[in-house]
Amino acid sequence: MSKLSIICFSGTIDKLTSVGVLAQAGAAMGMEVSVFVTFWGLMNFTKGEKKAIMPKEFEAYGPMMMEGMKREHVKSWYEMLKEAKEMGAKIYACSMAAGVMNIKKEDLDPIVDDMVGAATFLQEAEGGQILFI
Amino acid sequence: MSKLSIICFSGTIDKLTSVGVLAQAGAAMGMEVSVFVTFWGLMNFTKGEKKAIMPKEFEAYGPMMMEGMKREHVKSWYEMLKEAKEMGAKIYACSMAAGVMNIKKEDLDPIVDDMVGAATFLQEAEGGQILFI
Amino acid sequence: MSKLSIICFSGTIDKLTSVGVLAQAGAAMGMEVSVFVTFWGLMNFTKGEKKAIMPKEFEAYGPMMMEGMKREHVKSWYEMLKEAKEMGAKIYACSMAAGVMNIKKEDLDPIVDDMVGAATFLQEAEGGQILFI
Repeated sequence: MSKLSIICFSGTIDKLTSVGVLAQAGAAMGMEVSVFVTFWGLMNFTKGEKKAIMPKEFEAYGPMMMEGMKREHVKSWYEMLKEAKEMGAKIYACSMAAGVMNIKKEDLDPIVDDMVGAATFLQEAEGGQILFI
Repeated sequence: MSKLSIICFSGTIDKLTSVGVLAQAGAAMGMEVSVFVTFWGLMNFTKGEKKAIMPKEFEAYGPMMMEGMKREHVKSWYEMLKEAKEMGAKIYACSMAAGVMNIKKEDLDPIVDDMVGAATFLQEAEGGQILFI
Repeated sequence: MSKLSIICFSGTIDKLTSVGVLAQAGAAMGMEVSVFVTFWGLMNFTKGEKKAIMPKEFEAYGPMMMEGMKREHVKSWYEMLKEAKEMGAKIYACSMAAGVMNIKKEDLDPIVDDMVGAATFLQEAEGGQILFI
């Protein structure tokens, strides 16, 4: 079974959507999917309301995108990650980034399986495909 | 023959240039290159004039970059992709993103070979290297 | 020995930190690490003071991040790359980007091992994992 490992670095909603789509599609194809959430990405994986930050260059297109996603019934990145998890995907929070951002294990959204370091993630990703998003 | 699959997510001209360079270099080396254009990237793959959006952080450097590319005779990303295609590269538009952005198949630039979903792309990319740009 | 090849495209300090963490972690695990610095990334690999550019979307979080990194004793990306190099990692500057930005070989920071083209880098990366950061 081939592996797909995704480093979810960005905290903007466009890239989170890509993380969701690829994790879900990979898991549905039977790939061993793992997502390693770090840096700005982590801001969306704590308990409570999720922010919807747009990249500055494309801020003007935000409403058009959101409307288009509704019209096309595209699920939210969070829903897609939940579906990926039901098919076996794992979601890890980066322990170093959590430390820097003062995020404790108990602050994390229940969608997160564990908190690990970059070395552990690289080890798990070994021999597979990695994406930095 | 090794595979190089590029997810062209970004719509800024700096990253499009990287997509062009890597696709062209990979194809010239005999790699099986495929480019999957999605989200903001797609805004540059419709018919008509191409935009040249700069990342906000580096906007001030835009004119210097453009001038440097002219001086060094660096081809445009579009020209490089055309060359890659002549050496066998394939360019796909993401069907979900096209739906969200209300882009129809007939709106796409002729450089695009087909419109496919993320799962089809992951399948084609299997066993090779993937870049998210 | 598995290979980890990192294209260091971005010039913002958050992504440079990720390049440092992954290069260091990979080298420490015994992976064959190579970093190919191009475009905006190159602005941080010339001699002299390094800039600390933040991504526009997250500029407001900059001071919090910097303080958190100090508190957690996270090394700078430059220190992490130096450690990676001591464990065998190689750092290459992209010759095309250097040309465009008018950067000569003698302008490069001594941390850079050599100046090469994209094709050479892809060749060295062949069969391993590649990240575009």
